[in-house]
Amino acid sequence: MKIIVDAFGGDNAPDEILKGCRMAKDALGMDILLTGAESAIRSAAARLSLDIADMEILDCPDVLTMEDDPMSVRREKKNSSLAVCCMALRDGKGDAFVSAGNSGAVVVGATLFVKRLKGVLRVCFAPVLPKSTGFFLLADSGANNECTPQMLAQFGLMGSVYVEKVMGVKSPRVGLLNVGAEEHKGGPLQQAAFRLLSEDQRIRFVGNVEARDVPDDAAEVIVTDGFTGNVFIKTYEGVALVLMDKIKGIFKKNLKNQLAAAMVLGDMKQFKKDFDYNSYGGAPILGCSKPVFKVHGSAKAGTMFSALSLTAKYVSAGIIDEIAEAVGKGEGE
Amino acid sequence: MKIIVDAFGGDNAPDEILKGCRMAKDALGMDILLTGAESAIRSAAARLSLDIADMEILDCPDVLTMEDDPMSVRREKKNSSLAVCCMALRDGKGDAFVSAGNSGAVVVGATLFVKRLKGVLRVCFAPVLPKSTGFFLLADSGANNECTPQMLAQFGLMGSVYVEKVMGVKSPRVGLLNVGAEEHKGGPLQQAAFRLLSEDQRIRFVGNVEARDVPDDAAEVIVTDGFTGNVFIKTYEGVALVLMDKIKGIFKKNLKNQLAAAMVLGDMKQFKKDFDYNSYGGAPILGCSKPVFKVHGSAKAGTMFSALSLTAKYVSAGIIDEIAEAVGKGEGE
Repeated sequence: MKIIVDAFGGDNAPDEILKGCRMAKDALGMDILLTGAESAIRSAAARLSLDIADMEILDCPDVLTMEDDPMSVRREKKNSSLAVCCMALRDGKGDAFVSAGNSGAVVVGATLFVKRLKGVLRVCFAPVLPKSTGFFLLADSGANNECTPQMLAQFGLMGSVYVEKVMGVKSPRVGLLNVGAEEHKGGPLQQAAFRLLSEDQRIRFVGNVEARDVPDDAAEVIVTDGFTGNVFIKTYEGVALVLMDKIKGIFKKNLKNQLAAAMVLGDMKQFKKDFDYNSYGGAPILGCSKPVFKVHGSAKAGTMFSALSLTAKYVSAGIIDEIAEAVGKGEGE
Repeated sequence: MKIIVDAFGGDNAPDEILKGCRMAKDALGMDILLTGAESAIRSAAARLSLDIADMEILDCPDVLTMEDDPMSVRREKKNSSLAVCCMALRDGKGDAFVSAGNSGAVVVGATLFVKRLKGVLRVCFAPVLPKSTGFFLLADSGANNECTPQMLAQFGLMGSVYVEKVMGVKSPRVGLLNVGAEEHKGGPLQQAAFRLLSEDQRIRFVGNVEARDVPDDAAEVIVTDGFTGNVFIKTYEGVALVLMDKIKGIFKKNLKNQLAAAMVLGDMKQFKKDFDYNSYGGAPILGCSKPVFKVHGSAKAGTMFSALSLTAKYVSAGIIDEIAEAVGKGEGE
C-alpha cells in the first residue's frame, strides 16, 4: 500500500508532517509518496535528523495556503503540493491521499481530480469527533452548503459504512440532525431525508437527533447538510474552547487553586485527551473513487500518525467498493 | 405596570412561578395577573405560605403541556393558562405576558392573539446566552425554520434595539452566523441577508461570524434562521452539559480529587453561574405588538424573578414603539 502525503499542508508543515510519516512508516510499514518542494523536504528532514530515504518525493514548487481560493487547486496553484497530491492519486501513483491543507481545496481537488464514485451525488466531509463515550462521525460538516434529501441519505449510508468498516463499530446508529425528535420536525429537506433514511434497510436509522444529545451519546453517524454541520462543529469547538479556557483560568488563579490543579492534573489531562478534537485525526472525504483523508490543519506528528493509520484502514477495508455497490443498489441498479 | 403570568407554564409550576412572582412584586412593585386554575393556585400558595392577596387571578381550568401541539393553544387548549394569558394581553388586561410553558405554543399564541407589529414579517425567539464576557442575544433560535433575507435583517434590527434598550449595551455589535467570515460565504440566504444588514445604518453590523467565535466574544446580537439557531443553541447547551458533567465526575472520583474540588469550590460555582444558561431568564419574543417573554421551562423562582424584571424593562423601555418605527422606516414609509 502506498499513501500519497501533501508535505506542505497545514500549519506545521513540513516538519510535523514528515515526523508523522516517519512514525507511520515505522509502525505500519506502508509506502509513502511525499509531494512538495524536494529541496525543502530534504533540508527539513536533515534539520530534524529524520531518515526519509525510504520515502519517494514528487517534486513540485508551490504551496496552496489556507487563504487561497479552493478553486485555485486546478488553476494558479496546479503545481502546488496539494494539487500534485490529487493528480498523483488520480494517476494511480498511490492508493490514497492525505493532506492537512486548505479543507475547501482538498474537497475541490478530490472532486475534480480523484472524482466521485459513480452514483454519488456529492462527496462529503466527515470528521470524527469525541462524545461522552467514544465518538461520532458528522456528515456533512461543510463540503455542501446546500443539499437535497437524496444527498443526505447518501451521507448517512456512506458514513455508516465508514464507521463500521474503518472505525470498527458494528451496526452504527445513524441519526438525522434536527430541531426535534418527531418525524415531522424541521423543513422540507429534513422531512424528506427522514423518509429516505427510514426506508434504507442497509443502515440502522434511529430517527431525528437534537443537537443537545449529540455530544452525549445519540448516534455514531450524524447526518446533516454542510451549512448546519459546519455551524454545529464550530459551535462544538467554540464552547469547548471557552469552557476549557475558563477552567484553566480558575486553576491558575492563586496558589491554592494551583495546588488543587496539581491534585487533579492526571485526570484533567485524560479528560482533555478524551475530548480532544484532534484525537481522531480528521475527516475522510466520503464518496470519492479513491480514499482521501483531510487531517486537521493544526495537526502535529501524532495526529498525522493517527490520520495515516486510519487512511491505511480506509484503503484495506475495501469500503470504496462497498460504497460503490451500496450507492449503485440505492439507485435501483 | 401589570404583567400577566402563566401560573401553569414550565416544569416547576405553579410553586416556583408563584415564588418568583412574589419576589418580583416585593422588589419591583409591578402588578401581577396570574392565569390558571384559581383553586390550585390558592392551595399552592397556602402550602408555600406565600401571600398572593395582592395578585389578581384569571381562573381557567386547563394546562397546555410541553407535549401538546403548539397549535392547540387556539383550539383544544384555548382554556389553558397559556391561551388565557395570551388573550388577556390581547384584551389589554396587562402590559406584557410571561410564560415558562411550551415554547412553540408561546410563539403561536403571541402571533395569533397578541399579533405581530405592522411591518414585522415574523416574530422571532431571541434568548440571551452567556459568552466568555457578558452575553449575546440569538435571533432567531427556533420560531422560524425557514427564513427570507428580509426576515433575517429584521431579526438583526429588533435584536439590536432590545439589547441596547433592555440589556443596556450601547450600540451592540450585530453579526450574521455563517460558515466563514468573508462576504460571499454561505448560501443565497446568508449572502442576501449580509447585503441587507450591511446597508442598514441603524445597526452596527460587524459582518459574518463563525459559530466558534460566538461563545468567545464575536457580537452581542447573532442573527440566523430558526433552524440553524436551534441547532446552535442546543449544541451550545449539549457540549456545556457534557463537559461540566465530566468535570464533576473528576471532582468526585476519589478523596484526593474531592479535596481539590473543595479548594476551588467557590470559583467553580462562580464559573457555573457565569455560564448558566438560566441566568438571563429566557427569551423575549421580538416583533409582537406587546411584550411577550418566554422563560426557560426549567425555571425556578430566581429565574422567574429575572424574567419578570427583564419584562418590566421590556415594557418601560418603550422598545415596542421603537421597533414599530424602525420596521416601518425600514419599509420606506
